[in-house]
Amino acid sequence: MTEERIWTAALVVIGDEILSGRTQDKNVAQVALWLNDQGIRLAEVRVVPDDLARIGDAVNSLRAAHDYLFTTGGIGPTHDDITVDAIAAAFGVPVVEHPEARKVLEDYYRDRPGGLTPARLRMARVPEGSELLANPSSGAPGIRMANVYIMAGVPGITAAMLAAMTGTLEGGRPIVSVTVGARAPESDVADLLRETEAANPGVAIGSYPFFKDGRYGSNFVIRSADGDLARSTGLMLSERLRDAGFEPVEGGL
Amino acid sequence: MTEERIWTAALVVIGDEILSGRTQDKNVAQVALWLNDQGIRLAEVRVVPDDLARIGDAVNSLRAAHDYLFTTGGIGPTHDDITVDAIAAAFGVPVVEHPEARKVLEDYYRDRPGGLTPARLRMARVPEGSELLANPSSGAPGIRMANVYIMAGVPGITAAMLAAMTGTLEGGRPIVSVTVGARAPESDVADLLRETEAANPGVAIGSYPFFKDGRYGSNFVIRSADGDLARSTGLMLSERLRDAGFEPVEGGL
Repeated sequence: MTEERIWTAALVVIGDEILSGRTQDKNVAQVALWLNDQGIRLAEVRVVPDDLARIGDAVNSLRAAHDYLFTTGGIGPTHDDITVDAIAAAFGVPVVEHPEARKVLEDYYRDRPGGLTPARLRMARVPEGSELLANPSSGAPGIRMANVYIMAGVPGITAAMLAAMTGTLEGGRPIVSVTVGARAPESDVADLLRETEAANPGVAIGSYPFFKDGRYGSNFVIRSADGDLARSTGLMLSERLRDAGFEPVEGGL
Repeated sequence: MTEERIWTAALVVIGDEILSGRTQDKNVAQVALWLNDQGIRLAEVRVVPDDLARIGDAVNSLRAAHDYLFTTGGIGPTHDDITVDAIAAAFGVPVVEHPEARKVLEDYYRDRPGGLTPARLRMARVPEGSELLANPSSGAPGIRMANVYIMAGVPGITAAMLAAMTGTLEGGRPIVSVTVGARAPESDVADLLRETEAANPGVAIGSYPFFKDGRYGSNFVIRSADGDLARSTGLMLSERLRDAGFEPVEGGL
């Protein structure tokens, strides 16, 4: 295998509601899956509170370390939505009203009750030098500032913003996953797993035990940017599990 | 209100399966809720891959910045379980077998098929200088190294470890949350929210919009370590919402 460029991204999840446990985050998983389809690996996530300095610190350290940085949360119309201010400060630029964003909001709220109030107009504010990201779901656009992609926190809106960006980011090969399940306690096959991984440079094998319906089992996930290698390693692992007396289940349990 | 010490914690979620999107994390929310009951605020979360250096960097930066650091994941019997090695390296100490952990595992596996295999015995390895955390769920103990609490990643086992630690950590006053819901688009009450928060120093008000059953609405969450203040602010907010024409729903929608 020739040396290949690996594209990485980080995600900053912004919001007191995640850190208080009030809201179950759903954006980490959906951003991760979407990134993989773009050939980009989610390499790190940070969850930070609605705090200017804490958002800024996370953004500045992660945007320098990765090809892309995504953020979710804090771009709505209320006083606790401070993501734009925090990211502008992190870049050392002022917050400005984006004329195109204003137009999007004017169109969106023209026939809606209340119209474009000052609170709603807050959603046209961007760090100076930004471009907009389409929001097919609820009007107010996302924002791209250099390699930082600023998205909504409500998972359905985040999903719509991601969908609109599909295929627009440069990436490498997506990671291919092959899952093999077995009614094996993972500790019984630890050596077998380690040896199979070692015999196939370029794959990583994860082991995920479970206990359900009164029985123990595990799923083994083989991951590689080389799809053929992932699949051949899956076959090798299945064979070795069968030889050890554990019937493999392709696709996992 | 007299100045009071605020106790903070961070959480490092360790695992490729979270960053690949394969597994939906459930530990952030349950650790957050449990910490709040102990009077400790979850101030930051990082999700990192199964990588020695990345785990070590996150652990060293967060254990210095907070009263407590928790980790979930990577303490099982297989080759991808490297949390103990990473944290020992982060502290600059060797990995040793803990005699009490060995005894726990010997007892646990005595009557189980396969017995205490070398793979299972890996779960007795700890950074030198550690103590054990009880695991009422599945035998293999968690580990405390200084202010770092190393827990399992399977949410049911994490929950059992947390339950066993309840009341053992020093903390301050738990945050009290009061939720008020209304069939109000959050942008219609943005000024009202900001003014209510400003009129009640010591509270933070979060605004969480939703769209369900064909209608827009929002939940407003008032949070404070002063329970009386949280409750009186909730009453004030309800009154102001009613005055603005939005019937408040105590407890949220």
